[in-house]
Amino acid sequence: MTPTITAFAASPDRGRGLARDMRVRWALEEVGQPYNVRLVTFAQMKEPAHIAIQPFGQIPTYEDGDLALFETGSIILRIAEPHPGLLPKNANARARAITWMFAAVSTVEPPIVEWSGAMILERDKPWFDQRLPMLLNNIRKRLGELSRHLGDSEWLDGDFSVGDIMMTHVIERARSSGLIEEFPNLTAYLARAEARPAFQRAFAAQRQVFTDQQPAG
Amino acid sequence: MTPTITAFAASPDRGRGLARDMRVRWALEEVGQPYNVRLVTFAQMKEPAHIAIQPFGQIPTYEDGDLALFETGSIILRIAEPHPGLLPKNANARARAITWMFAAVSTVEPPIVEWSGAMILERDKPWFDQRLPMLLNNIRKRLGELSRHLGDSEWLDGDFSVGDIMMTHVIERARSSGLIEEFPNLTAYLARAEARPAFQRAFAAQRQVFTDQQPAG
Repeated sequence: MTPTITAFAASPDRGRGLARDMRVRWALEEVGQPYNVRLVTFAQMKEPAHIAIQPFGQIPTYEDGDLALFETGSIILRIAEPHPGLLPKNANARARAITWMFAAVSTVEPPIVEWSGAMILERDKPWFDQRLPMLLNNIRKRLGELSRHLGDSEWLDGDFSVGDIMMTHVIERARSSGLIEEFPNLTAYLARAEARPAFQRAFAAQRQVFTDQQPAG
Repeated sequence: MTPTITAFAASPDRGRGLARDMRVRWALEEVGQPYNVRLVTFAQMKEPAHIAIQPFGQIPTYEDGDLALFETGSIILRIAEPHPGLLPKNANARARAITWMFAAVSTVEPPIVEWSGAMILERDKPWFDQRLPMLLNNIRKRLGELSRHLGDSEWLDGDFSVGDIMMTHVIERARSSGLIEEFPNLTAYLARAEARPAFQRAFAAQRQVFTDQQPAG
């Protein structure tokens, strides 16, 4: 059965590939799994039909027959398991790849989300200029640790894996902070990820959702 | 081989079970797996020997023979896999349990960490009183969504699982905010979790680390 994912009908990022459906599309493209997309409005995300499959009212979700999942880490793990290419066969290497998925969403992403939230919600507050350096330093600290770990390696742990999908997409969301450029090996890591044909196909697909909504002419 | 985890030599929570080694100890106790603990100081956490197994300089870690892991979600998944009791046998139910692990660390925990960080680092700032209600509301929103999902159920999805270990420990960290009491079913959910003998054994073990360090007499 062809799985169905959900994505924003009108993504706040205007098709720049920063919404979290991008990670899932990318994983699906990496394993060559066709998929359907159901676009949801912000109003629909708060309705019972959506809440029933995503208790926190977010996107993306993943439906395949009787199974409904949310959380990109969980969805991508499910996509990767039956296919070669995104999860090592060796049990220890597989556990390490899963470690990097958790590190992406649990350790690296939170300061990025905190900063991007403040950029939207606190930009006009009198304290913004004082808090901003702290928010940026919290991101810089994690990027620095990630950069130190990556060193000259191509990917986080051996071959490209689910961990690299999650991590590169998470740090991509920090690009507009200018901090990634402080770490040339992370810049190169992102470039390697984004050069993958599967990334390119996923990016084009999410971009098309935005393009389709622009007024003609 | 008996696995070894790391924990704070001097936990900032003074033995209240809020440090993240508690989750791992609890999972080990649930499956009946004996373990060793290596206590690390804050200085040791920044040294190359620790960074080699935890690139972000945190605890806990998990070492078992050649394998070294970090991130509690990944560690607990590894602990659960070879044992019955924490992961459903059915593949779809298993994927949903893993979804809840990611939801705990990726969706519910970040606003709790943001609030607890501000309580330490920004309490004396002139903006603290204005920001605090926003920080609390971010937690309340997630707890409300979690409460709505849980309803009258005993656990998040069928039988007790790795998802419940992660989620209950994450929300326990918000207890001092007073927000959990706004949701009686979450209060009861936490009480059920903490009444489990495995939780009690894990709690006592981490508490002993604190007790051992108090001056005699």
